[in-house]
Amino acid sequence: MPTSTDKIFSEFKEHSVAEFFKKNKQMLGFSGKTRSLTTIVHEYVTNSLDACEEAGILAQITVKIEEVDKEKYRVTTEDNGPGIPKKHIGKALGQMLAGTKFHRYMQQRGQQGIGASGCTMYAQITTGKPVKATSFYDKKMISCEVAVDLKTNSAILTNVVEQDTDGSKSGLVVEGEFADVKYDKSSFGVFEYMKRTAMANPHAQFTLIEPTGESVTFPRTVAEIPKKAHSVLPHPLGISTNDLLDLAHRDTDSTKISVFLQNKFSRISAARVKELRDALPAVDFEKAPKDITWSDAEALVKAFTSVKWIAPETDSVIPIGKEQIEKSLQSILAPQFLSVTERPVKIYKGGVPFAVEVAIAYGGHAGRQLADKFTSDVMRFANRVPLLFDNSGCAISEAVKEVDWKRYNIKNFDEEPITLFINLASVYVPYTSAGKQAISSEEDVFAEIKYAVMEAARDLQRYLSGITRDRDKKERRKAVLRYVGQLSKDVVELAGSGKSADVEKKLMNLIETKYSTQIEEDESEIDAPKENGNGKEEDEGEE
Amino acid sequence: MPTSTDKIFSEFKEHSVAEFFKKNKQMLGFSGKTRSLTTIVHEYVTNSLDACEEAGILAQITVKIEEVDKEKYRVTTEDNGPGIPKKHIGKALGQMLAGTKFHRYMQQRGQQGIGASGCTMYAQITTGKPVKATSFYDKKMISCEVAVDLKTNSAILTNVVEQDTDGSKSGLVVEGEFADVKYDKSSFGVFEYMKRTAMANPHAQFTLIEPTGESVTFPRTVAEIPKKAHSVLPHPLGISTNDLLDLAHRDTDSTKISVFLQNKFSRISAARVKELRDALPAVDFEKAPKDITWSDAEALVKAFTSVKWIAPETDSVIPIGKEQIEKSLQSILAPQFLSVTERPVKIYKGGVPFAVEVAIAYGGHAGRQLADKFTSDVMRFANRVPLLFDNSGCAISEAVKEVDWKRYNIKNFDEEPITLFINLASVYVPYTSAGKQAISSEEDVFAEIKYAVMEAARDLQRYLSGITRDRDKKERRKAVLRYVGQLSKDVVELAGSGKSADVEKKLMNLIETKYSTQIEEDESEIDAPKENGNGKEEDEGEE
Repeated sequence: MPTSTDKIFSEFKEHSVAEFFKKNKQMLGFSGKTRSLTTIVHEYVTNSLDACEEAGILAQITVKIEEVDKEKYRVTTEDNGPGIPKKHIGKALGQMLAGTKFHRYMQQRGQQGIGASGCTMYAQITTGKPVKATSFYDKKMISCEVAVDLKTNSAILTNVVEQDTDGSKSGLVVEGEFADVKYDKSSFGVFEYMKRTAMANPHAQFTLIEPTGESVTFPRTVAEIPKKAHSVLPHPLGISTNDLLDLAHRDTDSTKISVFLQNKFSRISAARVKELRDALPAVDFEKAPKDITWSDAEALVKAFTSVKWIAPETDSVIPIGKEQIEKSLQSILAPQFLSVTERPVKIYKGGVPFAVEVAIAYGGHAGRQLADKFTSDVMRFANRVPLLFDNSGCAISEAVKEVDWKRYNIKNFDEEPITLFINLASVYVPYTSAGKQAISSEEDVFAEIKYAVMEAARDLQRYLSGITRDRDKKERRKAVLRYVGQLSKDVVELAGSGKSADVEKKLMNLIETKYSTQIEEDESEIDAPKENGNGKEEDEGEE
Repeated sequence: MPTSTDKIFSEFKEHSVAEFFKKNKQMLGFSGKTRSLTTIVHEYVTNSLDACEEAGILAQITVKIEEVDKEKYRVTTEDNGPGIPKKHIGKALGQMLAGTKFHRYMQQRGQQGIGASGCTMYAQITTGKPVKATSFYDKKMISCEVAVDLKTNSAILTNVVEQDTDGSKSGLVVEGEFADVKYDKSSFGVFEYMKRTAMANPHAQFTLIEPTGESVTFPRTVAEIPKKAHSVLPHPLGISTNDLLDLAHRDTDSTKISVFLQNKFSRISAARVKELRDALPAVDFEKAPKDITWSDAEALVKAFTSVKWIAPETDSVIPIGKEQIEKSLQSILAPQFLSVTERPVKIYKGGVPFAVEVAIAYGGHAGRQLADKFTSDVMRFANRVPLLFDNSGCAISEAVKEVDWKRYNIKNFDEEPITLFINLASVYVPYTSAGKQAISSEEDVFAEIKYAVMEAARDLQRYLSGITRDRDKKERRKAVLRYVGQLSKDVVELAGSGKSADVEKKLMNLIETKYSTQIEEDESEIDAPKENGNGKEEDEGEE
């Protein structure tokens, strides 16, 4: 037997992560011509936005798409960010799993350190050409060509030119040629991607130069830089034994476990440590964090669940913000009705804080208008990045589907002029794939999205029932008014005195008062008993 | 500016692929307790099956699941494969992207070299324990514990024990403890996974020992080892410029391009090279493959599409086989009707050969029986591996959904006692994610699946219309027979002679002949005009 299998094992080899993603490029989003082009723009634009925000710059990003040949395009992305220092250009654009994002516990769009290098790889394998980068950083302009050495997953830099500048300009320009891609205006194309990116990033200005040469600018609607993301400490709730152990073994600053807990976690105070100490007499809180055992860590994680924690720091997560979303959607959709729901920061598995915000827009340009009807439009975002693909496998779509819209008097959600805008803000987004287009259905995340959508649905219900009452009221009033003139005359005649005009005026007043009162009564009737606090309880009742 | 961004770049780091998948474990299928356990069993069972087939052994695999604690299980998988030599155990179970599978162009279940090491990582991070491996290989028994060093993506072996054996036993036993997992009998659980694996691998025997201690055996229904997979050369059709260039630059054996083309591709003969040479006067076919340029390669790839190729080698792809599927589904579903469709080998992007086989079963235990109705059951497989998750994003589900079932007189496909069994056999399956549960919608693959399902639907339609005719016939006959007795008596009386029993017999004969003839006529009528050759044309007509 072994002799026949010797051959099998003679072929045992190791591979680089770049070779893996070259073979499995669909996992990075390179599947289908339209999607591939959107993926490229997506990777460059998210990097530019992250860089600008981290440097505290109001982003201004231009994407230019030129048709070079059939299904072959040149994509140029230019930003006004900080640029990249020379020694990091290779790693940023030509090496996978390298960068500033992967290891930090901080809310950013990118989190893998794969995207831009994946684009370089895609340029190489479809056109045989490296990408060109020009970085304006620290009074220097560096331009070069970057390729990925797939065998070793390392960058190859060529034609490096460096020159001094006066430092007035900063930013990064990346230019690449890609084949097997297609520019179109479908709902999966670059145009739609840019539009949605603008909606979720009202502080940034985007210009798209289309292959036809036409230039579209999505102007800035808010002139305020978003709050700067910062690294946060994990919350003890939801942390795993392994994570705790890892943190402890890496902690060389703290002298003992009791200090480590306070230093490396959010919300663990001296009082909480005392509580934990009392609950766990078997754990030695005086020993060094490096000596913590699996069973110590396991006991701690278990004890965490019985301690009463204060809520996670609200600034660990940076939502777009109610006002920003309102301004943005008003300017782009001009809806009849708009309501934005922001849920408080919650924690999911791994101690990761997150928050969900949902806007619901009705009428105006909300929804999608087809020839003879409307369809609703669910726009998914993660840390302000639009998710255009893999709709069906995403926690956001699934949560929306699970909402019982009829309960909110929305008979056929799919055919209403409704836009649902849903953003998940989190220091770590659990994507289902390296292509980052769908969110895995983590229990807590899914539930929060659903509650937020339910809140939005309630707001819309209230508005729509208002419209119904308004219409009813107008009709009743019209019916009454028809008789007011005649009635006034009759009253005057009957009384034998007075002016019919005076009587008519009084009657009109009465009607106005009567109907406006009634409206208020109606509203309080509708609001009071149906609302029952937070979505959670209501939802549990539903199940 | 630069000073404020210096800090950003000071945090620039590189990461191992193991760290990447630890952070993004949901990409490997570790999301949700039930799914995580199924993923573990899936990885070990597929490796065992691949190993047995490559060594030419009729597989016998036992999976034992023991509950250690709440949501904590010990999983032990034992096979009778060739075992693993000592020096490869670490790489096979403790290093990602290492193995025999990634670089070979050969049909196997595993293709990434991640799965089993991913399980080791999951054991480590949920229970803090390495996995235990015992390998019987070449008159040796080696047992050891394996962990992944996540920082470096390399294996850590401990407690290695080696002893000589008489060589009568070969195989591998892997035992691991995993937490945050759950055993249940849902359609996403281990039981269902094993059942489906048995259906698609009738040559193998599987035993599942459940946490209750109960043992279930899915017996072998075919005693024939599947044809051995072998490495194949890519077909020129569908190859990309980059792939051609890669192959050429790696080819140190061929002295010139003309030889390289014949050596490194399937179906390129001297005659085809001549054809290509005539079509491409600008390309020098005499130069060494290492000197081939991007534009040479591009020209060749373009010319490939205008040459008339013979079909890919049918043995490049190993389907389960019509007979095997029939035996397997008969034994497990005992359906009223069963039909298996095998499509010929085709080529998709990258020059990859693949074939689709579809079985449709109706009645018996086909479909799923709920309290008051049936639902249809679509079973997805890739290289005989059941795909239980990510249903909605998979090319198989999407192709089934696109079939217009009403055309085949199946009014409500979702509520029929139908099982559709669909297997994609290919040297490379384009999975959407490293978790390997859904197939990316490559155009050619999608089309083939749809045609195969359409063929199956036609078969079922023919059977069901037969049933309808049969029922009609029986009813008409019953109606006629009601009068035969009386008619016979009347005829005898009218004629004034003969026995009514004789007349009745003759009449009965007449009826039998009449109706059986009519049935044949009916069938030829139905078959003739509706069939129009292959699914492709028909489908194009539809669009």
